Amino acid sequence: MTSAAYKGLDRLDAVSIANRGLNYGDGVFETMRVHRGELPLWPRHLARLLEGAARLGIAMPDVDFIEARIADMVSSVEAGVLKLLLTRGEGGRGYAPPSEAVPTWMLSLQPLPAMQAELDVHPCETRLATQPALAGIKHCNRLEQVLGRAEAARAGCDEGLMRDMAGNPVCATSANLLVLRAGRWRTPPVEACGVAGVLRGWLLVQGLVEVAPVTSGELEDANAVALCNAVRGILPVRALGAREWSPDPATDELQARLAMAYPMFQDAGSKP
Amino acid sequence: MTSAAYKGLDRLDAVSIANRGLNYGDGVFETMRVHRGELPLWPRHLARLLEGAARLGIAMPDVDFIEARIADMVSSVEAGVLKLLLTRGEGGRGYAPPSEAVPTWMLSLQPLPAMQAELDVHPCETRLATQPALAGIKHCNRLEQVLGRAEAARAGCDEGLMRDMAGNPVCATSANLLVLRAGRWRTPPVEACGVAGVLRGWLLVQGLVEVAPVTSGELEDANAVALCNAVRGILPVRALGAREWSPDPATDELQARLAMAYPMFQDAGSKP
Repeated sequence: MTSAAYKGLDRLDAVSIANRGLNYGDGVFETMRVHRGELPLWPRHLARLLEGAARLGIAMPDVDFIEARIADMVSSVEAGVLKLLLTRGEGGRGYAPPSEAVPTWMLSLQPLPAMQAELDVHPCETRLATQPALAGIKHCNRLEQVLGRAEAARAGCDEGLMRDMAGNPVCATSANLLVLRAGRWRTPPVEACGVAGVLRGWLLVQGLVEVAPVTSGELEDANAVALCNAVRGILPVRALGAREWSPDPATDELQARLAMAYPMFQDAGSKP
Repeated sequence: MTSAAYKGLDRLDAVSIANRGLNYGDGVFETMRVHRGELPLWPRHLARLLEGAARLGIAMPDVDFIEARIADMVSSVEAGVLKLLLTRGEGGRGYAPPSEAVPTWMLSLQPLPAMQAELDVHPCETRLATQPALAGIKHCNRLEQVLGRAEAARAGCDEGLMRDMAGNPVCATSANLLVLRAGRWRTPPVEACGVAGVLRGWLLVQGLVEVAPVTSGELEDANAVALCNAVRGILPVRALGAREWSPDPATDELQARLAMAYPMFQDAGSKP
């Protein structure tokens, strides 16, 4: 893994114990696909990062400088995953954000994970709490996802379905949920909980998916279910607990539409 | 500030960018008063740390080794605050907790903060989400408290009152809430949100305080209000927004009961 941390324009040798990311999860992050030296969905990742920093009141470091450091790191990379982590910086008296804090940001490059053709999803018992102040952004308070993902791993599944406190499906631990009913793809709203995924945003703008609540019953009798994220693209769900779905041409079509705009996602969901 | 980080029995030079505390707030912590080389409430702090680690599925490092390192750090300290931070360690594929993760734990020693005689408290707009899976323990997902404390600072107040999604008072950002009504001290339950404070636990076991829900109306017309935590002891609330309280002998008596058991808290709440 290649990685680097910065404070302002200075490269750091180490992350301080006093970093507020470490102490309170006081930060935001983006996990991005790298393809032939570029980040295909970078403008959307940057927009969410800016929104997250603004909502948490974290000063945004110089974007040109960040982009230059990203270019240094990925310019010769054929395929991979780049994570950008931005925290409020160090110190402060307890929870109080120090007004003079200089944000810390970090880049780390990892190999592209093996892509699966289809996913077995575990319905997690861990629920997503309703918190409009934090919903939508990709902040670093992720214990719900950690607990959900641990449940999925214990069940031998690839991913975990997260539901809200009322029991309605919202998303997977690290992907958004796409539900096909009556020929239309829906994705649940993320104003109360969940993350506004970058690829979900692209699908919405293209008019390929619409935002609509989905009940557990509606998910159960959907024609097809898929997950999407900015690293893996669109992945068909084969099973959710005991419910199984056969491959549906509508999922192939959605994948094809994505691959027309972003060819690097062509392999996602292909048979291994 | 004196600080040290450990992984198993090894002292670390730096905290890795891959630390799950930094990435997901995947850890628990304790903030403890140091008095003449000892931690007065250590058994209660340790019990909560063990419960938090168990609930999150974080392997607990060797307690004897931790206690020995704490003794090294505080044995000659007259007064201070010791923070112990335990994270799940490094790595893993995304949110999935790596089964082989070796937890990282850190100690940092800071000066005892100046104690205030009474507090002005801001009623925060930021609410506490209902999340029974995380309530009670002192985990590192603290963005709600960071946002609440920032509100309090903007209002020029010492602390912030946090309410649940139904609008009922739960606690302050870094202290539990004590509400005097009809001669009895109440503290709201922390099964849905909030932290089960160590000093709150002691007050409950002593029979000095009882657990009972408190509505905003009941808080408004309480006879007295105080906050408690394991560093500052019991601090009277002078004002909550526009509502002000005069000093009440019941608060002095509660402070005196605490000081009988733990004399180091005698100065907390005394006039500056």
